[in-house]
Amino acid sequence: MAAAAPPPPPTPAAITLPDPTPTGQPVFARVRLGTASDVPHIHKLIHQMAVFERLTHLFSATEASLSSTLFTSPPFQSFTIFILEVSPNPFPPTIPPHPLFSPITQMVPLDLPIDDPEKEAFRSHNSGGLDVLIAGFVLFFPNFSTFLGKPGFYVEDLFVRDCYRRKGFGKMLLSAVAAQAVKMGYGRVEWVVLDWNVNAIKFYEEMGAKVLQEWRICRLTGEALQAYGNAHN
Amino acid sequence: MAAAAPPPPPTPAAITLPDPTPTGQPVFARVRLGTASDVPHIHKLIHQMAVFERLTHLFSATEASLSSTLFTSPPFQSFTIFILEVSPNPFPPTIPPHPLFSPITQMVPLDLPIDDPEKEAFRSHNSGGLDVLIAGFVLFFPNFSTFLGKPGFYVEDLFVRDCYRRKGFGKMLLSAVAAQAVKMGYGRVEWVVLDWNVNAIKFYEEMGAKVLQEWRICRLTGEALQAYGNAHN
Repeated sequence: MAAAAPPPPPTPAAITLPDPTPTGQPVFARVRLGTASDVPHIHKLIHQMAVFERLTHLFSATEASLSSTLFTSPPFQSFTIFILEVSPNPFPPTIPPHPLFSPITQMVPLDLPIDDPEKEAFRSHNSGGLDVLIAGFVLFFPNFSTFLGKPGFYVEDLFVRDCYRRKGFGKMLLSAVAAQAVKMGYGRVEWVVLDWNVNAIKFYEEMGAKVLQEWRICRLTGEALQAYGNAHN
Repeated sequence: MAAAAPPPPPTPAAITLPDPTPTGQPVFARVRLGTASDVPHIHKLIHQMAVFERLTHLFSATEASLSSTLFTSPPFQSFTIFILEVSPNPFPPTIPPHPLFSPITQMVPLDLPIDDPEKEAFRSHNSGGLDVLIAGFVLFFPNFSTFLGKPGFYVEDLFVRDCYRRKGFGKMLLSAVAAQAVKMGYGRVEWVVLDWNVNAIKFYEEMGAKVLQEWRICRLTGEALQAYGNAHN
C-alpha cells in the first residue's frame, strides 16, 4: 500500500475549483436493519470480533444458536442488529422502508481505495446487483432505567472489519443507535468498554459519552448459574 | 408490638418434636410476577431505592411513565418484574398459573416479628383477603451474549424494603431470576454493583457471581444523546 502523496479529498470545493490531481475513491456506506438472512455473515463477524479480542475460547455461538434467538421479535422490541454495508456505487432508496427506521447512507471520501481481502466471504445478499459488501454490525436491545422511568438501548457489540477501520464507520453505527433512541423517546444509550482501552474510551468520550468509573459488572454463568436450576423444581 | 412469648412456628418438626421454648414468628414469602396493577407500589419502591442510594436528584419516573413502558410485552420477552410479598399466613396456590412461571413460596422463621411502619402503603392488591404486604421487587430483562450466541437476563434493580432486609429476601428474588434463566436455557445473569459496596460484593460472590474488574459502563444521555436526534432527519 506504499503510495505517492495522497490526493486531496473530493470536497464540494472540487466542483467550483476543478483540481487536475486525482481525487481519490469515494465509498458509499449504508446502515440498514439486519434480517435472518444476514445470520451467516453475522456469525463470521462475531467470530472475527472474538479473534480480535483474543477471546475465541469463549466463543461458542453457532449459526443455529443465532438463528433461533435473533430476529424472533420485531426490530427495537428486543435484540436488534444494524448492518453496515459499503459499496463503490450509491445505494438506491429502500422500498418499502421500515415504519420505524430508514436506512442511513453516507458518502465517505477516501485517499486510497480499500483493499478488502475477504470480498467474497462478505458479499451482501441484499446487494441488488450492486457490488455491496458487509463491513460491520452493531447489536443492541432495549434496557430500562427505573430512575428515568423509561427505556434506553444497550449496545452489546459494535464491530467493523479490519480494513474498514479508522474511517468513521464505527461512529456511523453508534450514531445510528443514538439517533434511533432519540427518535423513540428513550433516555439513554449504554455499553461497556475495557478500562485499559484508552483509544476506545477517547473515541466514546468525544462522542459525548461518560465513562462510569464506580460500577462493576457482576456475572452469574456456567455451573454457578446452573446450580439455581434445581432450587425450585 | 411488645408481646408475650410468641407461639412456636408451625413446622413439621413442631408436630413430631414439640419444643417448649419460644422460637419466633414465621413469615411466609412469595415471589410472583408483577402486573400493571402493581405500578403504584413499584413507583414507591423505586423512590425508596433512590432515597437509599442518595440519588433522588436523578429520580424522574412517574406512575404514568412506568405504566406506559412496563407490562407492554409478555413476561420475560422484555422488561419483567418479580414482586416479593410477605404474609403471616401461608399463600394459597395460584390459579391459573403462568405457563412460564409459578410463584415461589418460602417460609422464613424469625426470632422476632417484623414491625413494618408502612403497612398501609404497601398492602398488596392481590392479597385475596390475606394480610399480604409488598416487601420488594426485582426488575430484569433479556440481554444477549454474541459469544454464547444466546440470551441471558440483566437485572436492573433489586430492592427490599428496609424492615425486611438481612432475612434472605434479596437472595430469594435474585435466585428466582437465576432459576428462570436456567429454565429458559439462558446463558448468563448479569447486574452491576458499586465498587465500594463491599457488603453487596461479598453477598453476590457468595451467590456464585464473578465481579468483572476491567469493564466500565459508558453512558450517552441528556443533551449529549439528544444531539444525535438531528443527525439524520
